[in-house]
Amino acid sequence: MTTVPSADARTTLAPATRPAATGPASTTGPAAPPAPYGLDPLFRPASIAVVGASAQPDKAGHAMLQALRRFPGALHPVNPRGGEILGRPVLTSLRESSDVDLAVLVVPPVAVPAALEDAAAAGVRAAVVCAGGFAESGPQGAAVQERAASVAREAGIRLLGPNTSGFMNPVDRVTANFMPAVADLTPGTVSIVAQSGGVNLTLAFLLARAGVGLRLGVGLGNAVDVDFPEVLDLLADDDATTAVGLHVEGVGDGPALVAALRRTTARKPVVAFKVGRSDVSEFARSHTGAMIGSYGVTRAALAQAGAVVVDSLEELVAALVALRAVRLPVATRVGVGLLTGQAGPGLVVTDALGARGIELPPLTAATQQRLTELLPPLTFQRNPVDTGRPSPEFGQVLAAVAGDPGIDVLGVYALDEPGALDPVAALGPAAGRVLFATGGPQDAIEQRAAALADAGIPTLGGPGELATGLAAVVADARLRAVPDAPPAPASRTVGRALDEHEAKSLLESLGVRCPARRVADDRAQAHAALADLTRDGVRVVVKVLDAAVTHKSDVGGVHVGVHDPVALDRALDAIDAIPSGTTAPAGADASRRYLLEEMAAPGTELIVGAVRDPAFGPVVLLGLGGVAAELGREPVLRLAPLSPERSEEMVRALPSAVLAGFRGAPPVDIAALATVLRAVGDLIVDHGDVTEVDLNPVRVTPDGPLALDALVVTEP
Amino acid sequence: MTTVPSADARTTLAPATRPAATGPASTTGPAAPPAPYGLDPLFRPASIAVVGASAQPDKAGHAMLQALRRFPGALHPVNPRGGEILGRPVLTSLRESSDVDLAVLVVPPVAVPAALEDAAAAGVRAAVVCAGGFAESGPQGAAVQERAASVAREAGIRLLGPNTSGFMNPVDRVTANFMPAVADLTPGTVSIVAQSGGVNLTLAFLLARAGVGLRLGVGLGNAVDVDFPEVLDLLADDDATTAVGLHVEGVGDGPALVAALRRTTARKPVVAFKVGRSDVSEFARSHTGAMIGSYGVTRAALAQAGAVVVDSLEELVAALVALRAVRLPVATRVGVGLLTGQAGPGLVVTDALGARGIELPPLTAATQQRLTELLPPLTFQRNPVDTGRPSPEFGQVLAAVAGDPGIDVLGVYALDEPGALDPVAALGPAAGRVLFATGGPQDAIEQRAAALADAGIPTLGGPGELATGLAAVVADARLRAVPDAPPAPASRTVGRALDEHEAKSLLESLGVRCPARRVADDRAQAHAALADLTRDGVRVVVKVLDAAVTHKSDVGGVHVGVHDPVALDRALDAIDAIPSGTTAPAGADASRRYLLEEMAAPGTELIVGAVRDPAFGPVVLLGLGGVAAELGREPVLRLAPLSPERSEEMVRALPSAVLAGFRGAPPVDIAALATVLRAVGDLIVDHGDVTEVDLNPVRVTPDGPLALDALVVTEP
Repeated sequence: MTTVPSADARTTLAPATRPAATGPASTTGPAAPPAPYGLDPLFRPASIAVVGASAQPDKAGHAMLQALRRFPGALHPVNPRGGEILGRPVLTSLRESSDVDLAVLVVPPVAVPAALEDAAAAGVRAAVVCAGGFAESGPQGAAVQERAASVAREAGIRLLGPNTSGFMNPVDRVTANFMPAVADLTPGTVSIVAQSGGVNLTLAFLLARAGVGLRLGVGLGNAVDVDFPEVLDLLADDDATTAVGLHVEGVGDGPALVAALRRTTARKPVVAFKVGRSDVSEFARSHTGAMIGSYGVTRAALAQAGAVVVDSLEELVAALVALRAVRLPVATRVGVGLLTGQAGPGLVVTDALGARGIELPPLTAATQQRLTELLPPLTFQRNPVDTGRPSPEFGQVLAAVAGDPGIDVLGVYALDEPGALDPVAALGPAAGRVLFATGGPQDAIEQRAAALADAGIPTLGGPGELATGLAAVVADARLRAVPDAPPAPASRTVGRALDEHEAKSLLESLGVRCPARRVADDRAQAHAALADLTRDGVRVVVKVLDAAVTHKSDVGGVHVGVHDPVALDRALDAIDAIPSGTTAPAGADASRRYLLEEMAAPGTELIVGAVRDPAFGPVVLLGLGGVAAELGREPVLRLAPLSPERSEEMVRALPSAVLAGFRGAPPVDIAALATVLRAVGDLIVDHGDVTEVDLNPVRVTPDGPLALDALVVTEP
Repeated sequence: MTTVPSADARTTLAPATRPAATGPASTTGPAAPPAPYGLDPLFRPASIAVVGASAQPDKAGHAMLQALRRFPGALHPVNPRGGEILGRPVLTSLRESSDVDLAVLVVPPVAVPAALEDAAAAGVRAAVVCAGGFAESGPQGAAVQERAASVAREAGIRLLGPNTSGFMNPVDRVTANFMPAVADLTPGTVSIVAQSGGVNLTLAFLLARAGVGLRLGVGLGNAVDVDFPEVLDLLADDDATTAVGLHVEGVGDGPALVAALRRTTARKPVVAFKVGRSDVSEFARSHTGAMIGSYGVTRAALAQAGAVVVDSLEELVAALVALRAVRLPVATRVGVGLLTGQAGPGLVVTDALGARGIELPPLTAATQQRLTELLPPLTFQRNPVDTGRPSPEFGQVLAAVAGDPGIDVLGVYALDEPGALDPVAALGPAAGRVLFATGGPQDAIEQRAAALADAGIPTLGGPGELATGLAAVVADARLRAVPDAPPAPASRTVGRALDEHEAKSLLESLGVRCPARRVADDRAQAHAALADLTRDGVRVVVKVLDAAVTHKSDVGGVHVGVHDPVALDRALDAIDAIPSGTTAPAGADASRRYLLEEMAAPGTELIVGAVRDPAFGPVVLLGLGGVAAELGREPVLRLAPLSPERSEEMVRALPSAVLAGFRGAPPVDIAALATVLRAVGDLIVDHGDVTEVDLNPVRVTPDGPLALDALVVTEP
C-alpha cells in the first residue's frame, strides 16, 4: 500500500521531521499501541472510503462524494444499504475493503467509534471525522470523542477532527470536504490551517477571489489528534508551500505551537488571525470546545514566533497575497517606497501605512535628482512619488525609487490604463521587492494580475489592501529580527510565601532596583529606621510588612510622606489596626512588622509583571500605571524567558510619549527597564512555584526604573 | 438647447433646490455676471466637446474621447490641427461650435483660461478641467486657477475641477473621465462624491467588483466651483440614488458641508471616508491644495450630520453595499441578529461586531423555543444562531430570528451550498432587514448575488465585510436618533481678556459649578479669605489671579493644600515672585491679586473645552485628564451648539469605566456633565470673540462635575 507518487518529487507533504511516519510497528499484536502513521495517508491517500455516503443530493454524505469526484485514486462509497452512488459501487461496510488509506466519516457522532473500529480492522491509516456534537456540545459528546480518539490511537489511525468540514489538497486532487465546489479549487502555493472547517473553506474561496491558488487547506475542528504543530511542521518542510495562513480560536499546547511556528517562520512567512477581540468565549466553546484563552497573550505569542498577526480574514488574505511572492531578508528597519499614478489613492495608502506606524523614508538627493529628470514638474517627488498619469518613463521612475538605498520594498498603485502603463514591463525588473494594486474592469484586472503573478509580482485589490500587504511584508522581516531566548525549565522553587522585603531582595539579586528600605520588627526599630532614612531630609513610606496582606493600600497599610516621629507613630497605629493576614481577627497584632522606604522622585508609573498563562506558560507584562491601566490600554506582553533584544523591543513598544518622558517626567532608561523585564521573566521561569510577579508601580526616575512595590505570588 | 430627456422622468439630476438652474439671465450684456447654470449641463449634457482631443492612443485627450464613446448626444473633438479622430470630425476651435453644453478640457494648465474664454464665446454651459498643476502646485498655479475660475464665473459656466479625472454618469452614458473603461461601468443606484478624481475611479471599480452599479461618480479635484454641498443636494433630490459615498481630504466650508449632509442623510444613507489619520498633510497639500484639517473634528462633524464614517475605502464599499438595500428607521438601539450555517465564520462575525461595540441581544424565550423545534440539538441557539449545515428548515429558522421583537436587522453567513441552501428563497421574506455574506466559487456567488440583489438583499464578500455592513446599518439608524441644535450666530462679545475668576463667573452664569472661591486684592484680604474658607477644616488652593498668566502651574502660581497662615504666606511669596503678565520685568508686583478656592474631593479628572475650528466653527471637546490625555487618547468632539440629547450622547461616549467610576472614584453624573458641555458650547457660539474655552480639569465629585480651572481666551 503506497501513497500516490507526486509528479514533482520535491512536492511532498511527508513530514521529514517525524521518524514515525512509516506506519505502525505492528498491526497484529495488541500489546503496545503502534507508532502512529505520518500525515501522508491523510493528505495524500492512494484510496479513500466515504463512510455514510448517500444517494440523496441534499445530504452531506452525497456532497462529500461529489467533492472527491476528481480524486485520481480508488474512491469507495460506504453505506449499509449498498447499491451504487454517482456511478460507483457501494460497500456495505468498511470491513469489505482492504486497500483504503483514508476513511472520511460522514456519520452521526454516536456511530463514529464503531466506524473507526471497522476502519482499524480494514487497515485504514487515516480518518476525517466530519460530524459535530462531540466535546464542543458537552460532557456526553466529550465521552464519545474520547472513545473515538482512543480507538484511533490504538490502531495508529491518524484522525482529523472531529467537528470539521475536512481538508482540501487541490494539488493532488484530494478535496475531502463536504462542499462539492472544492473539487474545482485552483492548485497553488498558499496553505491554510484553520481551527474551524468553515473558516478553512471561507479562506480558500477568499484566496481564490484574490487570484491565489491553494496548496493545502486544513480545518482542524476539535483536533483530538492532528493539530497545529504537526501540520505546521509538514508545511515548513513542504517546498510547494510558499506561505501559510492560520486561523486560531483557542490554543491547547502553547509551547508546541510556538516551537512549530518558529521552525516554520524561519523558512516561510506565516500570517495568523486570532479570534477573540471581544468576549465570544461562550459561543466559541460551544463551537470547538476550545477556550478562546487570552487574546493578548496568544497574539503576542504568535508574533513572537514570527507570525504576522492580522485583524480580519480579509487582511489575512491580503497579507498572504503579498507574502507568498515578496519576502524580505530579516531587518530591524524596512524602508517602504510608494509610487502612484494617481495622487488620491496614493494619499489613502500613505495614510493607512502611517496609521500602522509605517513612515515612508525620504529618498536620497541622487534619487530625487533622477526623478526631476524623469517626471514633469509639479508632481510630488518625495516619497510617495506621484507620477501623474503614467508616461513611458514609469518603468525608469520605478527603477530609480527601487534603487534608492533606503528603499527595501516598493508599493505601486496605478489604475488599469492599458494605453498609459504596462505594469508587467514596468514592474517586472523589481519583482520580489514590489507589490502592485490597481483598479479597473474586473476581467482586465484578473488578466493583468495573472501576468504579474507569473512575473513574481502580487496584485492587491485596492489602496487599503496594498497598505495591508506592505505592512505584512514589513512585519514579517522585522519580527524575525528579534532573537528570542530558548525556553527554559524551572530549576528551583521559592517554597513559601514572600513578604515585600523578601520579594524585593529576590528581585534585587536579579538586578532590579528598589528604594532604600529598613525592616522594623517593632516600634523602636521603626523609629531608628526613620532616623536613619531621613538623615538627608527625605520623606519615607511606612508599610505593613506581612506576606498575607497583599492589598496593603486597601487596608490602610501604606503611609506616604512620613518625616517625623509623630507622623510615624500615627502610621504605625494605623498599621497595627490591620487584621493580621486574612484569617486572624481584627485588632492590634503584637507580631506586626513594618517596612520603611525612602520615597522616590516623581515620574511616570509603569506596571511590570509576569503570569503563568495556562496555554503558553510564563508571560511578562509591561503596562502603564494609574488611569491608563484602568482604561483598557493593552499592556505589552511577551513570552518569557526574554532575550536582551526581546526585552528592549518590549520597552520600545511603549508609547513614544512615555519613552521620551512627557510633562517634564524623566525619559525611560531603555536598557535599565529591559533589565527589570528580564529579571521578572527569569524569576517566574526559574521558580516553578511562582504563579505571578507584580511590580506595581515601577517608577521611572532620573536614575532609572525603581520598583516601589513588589509582590511574588507562590503556589500554596 | 435642451438636455437629454431621461427615460425615467423621476431620474433627474437637476437640483430642485437651486432656483438659478435655468441658466444665465443674460448671455449678451457684460454688465452683471449671469446667474450660474445648474448642474444639468455638466452631468447630463446634450452635447460635449473634448478640447485637447488627440489621435495618439497614449494621450489623455485620446482616452477621454474613448471614454465618451457611448455618449448618446453630439460629441466634438477639438484640436487646432483638425482632421478626424476615432471617426469624428475635429473642430479646430471651440468657437466653431454653437451647441455644446459641456466642454471637457484636456489641455495644460496655462491653456485653460483661454479655452474657457472660447467656451464662453461658444455659449458652453459647463466645463471639466482635468489638468493638474493649479493651486495644488504653488502660487503660480494658484494664479492660473483663479484666472480660470473667474472666466467661468463671469460666463456662468459651471466648472468641475481643475485637477480631476472627471465624472461618470453611466445611467445617462456621460462618462467623462480619461480612463476608457469607464464607458462600460454598469449603471446602478450608488453615487460617489470624491475629492480626488483617482479615488472616484478607484471606488467606482471597487463597487463594480462588489456587484454594485454606479448612478453618478464625481471627482471634485480642486473644487473651485462645483463642491460637496451642491452635489450632495443634487443627490439628495435624485430619486435614482439610493446611497452616497464620500471621500474627503480637506474641507473648506464646514457648515455648508454639514448642512447639505443633514439634508441628504435625512433622505438617504451617506457613508464617508476621511483621509488623514496619520500626518499626510504635506503630500495632501501638493495633491489637491486642500489642508487636511483636523481629522477628529471632520470625522465628528460628518457623523454628527448623519454620515456613517468608515476607516478605509474597502469599508466604504461594504457599507454602501449594505446601506443601498437596507436602511432601518431611526432608533437609539438597534438589535442585530446573526444566523450562520458554519460556526467558525459566525464566530468571526460576532467577534468583529463585538470589537465595534455591537453586542448581539439575547432572543426571547418564545424564539428560543421555536429554534429548539427547528434545529438539531447541540447547535448554538442563542444569538448568534448556528444552524450547522443548512437544512430545509433554514428559512423557518431565519423567520423565527427575524420575527424576534429584539431583532431589527439580521446578518446571515452561509457558504454557497446549492444542494443545502437556496438563499433567495430562505432570505427573501426578510428583504430590507437582512444582509447576506457567503463564500464559494466566484461565478456561482456572483450569480447568487445578482438574484439576491433583485430580491432586495445585499451580498457581502466575507465575514469581515458582513460585520462592516451590519455596523454601517446600525450606525446609520442610530446617528439620526440624536437631534442637533440648529447653528446659531454669535450675538455678543466678551470684549476683553478674562481672569480665572471672571471666566468662572461667566461659566457659572451658564450653569457650570466651580469650587467656592474668594478674590483677594492684597495679603490682608487673602488671609481673611483663608479664615473664611477654612472654617470647616477644608484646605484651599491659592492661585495667582491674572488674565495675562495663562500657564499658572508652570510659573509657580498654584499652591495646593494650604490650611494655615504660614503656608499661605509662603504661597503668596511665591506668587508675588511671578513676573507680571508676559511683558513685565520679573520681580514683586504690587498689583498682584490672588484667588483662594476650596479644594475639591478626589475623583476622576476630565478636560472640557471648546475651540473655533477654521473649517467647522465652534467645536466642544470632552477628554480624559492627566496621563490619558498625554497618551494620545482621542477626545470626544462635537460641533456646537449642543442640543441636550447631543450633549448626553457626548458624555456617554466616554469609556464605561470612567462613567461608572473606577478604583472607587465617584460615577459621572451624566446630566450634570452634559450641562457643562452645553454651557461651554453656548459660550463659544454666543460670543464671537471667544477663540477657546478650557476647563482643565473638571473633577468628577460625588456632587457632580466641578470645574477646578477655567480659561476663556478672547481675540485681542
